[in-house]
Amino acid sequence: MRISELSRRSGVPNATIKYYLREGLLPPGRATAATQAEYDETHLRRLRLIRALVGVRGLSVASAKQVLEAMTEHRTDPHEVLGIAFGIRPSGSGDPGAAEDDGTDGTNPEAAALVEAMGWSVSEHNPARQIIDRTLRTLRSLDVAYDWQALLPYAELAERTARYDLDRIESITDPLEKAERAVLLTFLLEPALMALRRLAQENESTARHGGRAHP
Amino acid sequence: MRISELSRRSGVPNATIKYYLREGLLPPGRATAATQAEYDETHLRRLRLIRALVGVRGLSVASAKQVLEAMTEHRTDPHEVLGIAFGIRPSGSGDPGAAEDDGTDGTNPEAAALVEAMGWSVSEHNPARQIIDRTLRTLRSLDVAYDWQALLPYAELAERTARYDLDRIESITDPLEKAERAVLLTFLLEPALMALRRLAQENESTARHGGRAHP
Repeated sequence: MRISELSRRSGVPNATIKYYLREGLLPPGRATAATQAEYDETHLRRLRLIRALVGVRGLSVASAKQVLEAMTEHRTDPHEVLGIAFGIRPSGSGDPGAAEDDGTDGTNPEAAALVEAMGWSVSEHNPARQIIDRTLRTLRSLDVAYDWQALLPYAELAERTARYDLDRIESITDPLEKAERAVLLTFLLEPALMALRRLAQENESTARHGGRAHP
Repeated sequence: MRISELSRRSGVPNATIKYYLREGLLPPGRATAATQAEYDETHLRRLRLIRALVGVRGLSVASAKQVLEAMTEHRTDPHEVLGIAFGIRPSGSGDPGAAEDDGTDGTNPEAAALVEAMGWSVSEHNPARQIIDRTLRTLRSLDVAYDWQALLPYAELAERTARYDLDRIESITDPLEKAERAVLLTFLLEPALMALRRLAQENESTARHGGRAHP
């Protein structure tokens, strides 16, 4: 297909595709004339993955390029590819997935205690660890007595959530396609999962405190 | 206590407290001299609630004032107060909790189908409905075939999450304090709950695809 059709089918503007080509995120098409090239389904799929990393995971173009290269290098190992997509595995020099320094020593002791209590096998590099410790610190700064043990029931529900998540991508065999889908579902579903919690909270509050449901 | 101690104990800067006093969010203290006033524990608690609404729920000062007035008016009914705190119940003229118009007809049919299937009692005004429909539209625009039925297993987990959430504030009897805590826990816990999901995903991926855990 021509670049215009690639643009139409991916929803990515022409100029953006050309930018990705120049930056080497997207491999060049097969040249058919001095200023014309043919693209195929692999380009379309790669473009979707780029959009997932840049638009959904929020990586810079330079970071996305590193991640794509590392993913391609390990493409036969789905676990490795997923790890790189999520920023858990280092993707080469630099570490675009690493969370910014927040002045702590980086050990995140509360996340570590929680992971151990759950018996989870989780990399030290998983940026989610830092979010756990930071959230608990914030809550305590607001006088809410909350520690990692208070998160244990939620961790058990998260375990079941993750099983549903992985079920949804189980049947995808191509590791890069699997990674794209995993990034999309992990990050894009977040607002919906939190919205479900709020709907369920209202329902639960109605059940406990009575009160008519509002129209 | 003097305003300086109120500032120290709440962590809210002196100037910000004076601003809340001028705007009528915080009731005046008891005047002890021409330029001096005494504040008490009710001021401290109200200040924490203001911070929860403005800093955590992200309301404007004007919206927070409306919400506070509506909450005070209904303070004997915890269900009503929680509904106002979350923006589910209208808080008077204007509707600071209402989600912005996104060009749809506002019926959110997928959220409605989900709520009905779950048998939930949830207000039409709950802004979380819109997030459900918007997320599903976004996923489909990226060629991920996902509808409200795919969210059902997650909704069941959300139901259990909400039970834990409400358990945590069950013992608080003062409705305004309960509302403050509910806003804090609902909004501040969100990143931690999503972080738990990511940790659990890595663990589940390791279990399914093998691969050594990274150091």
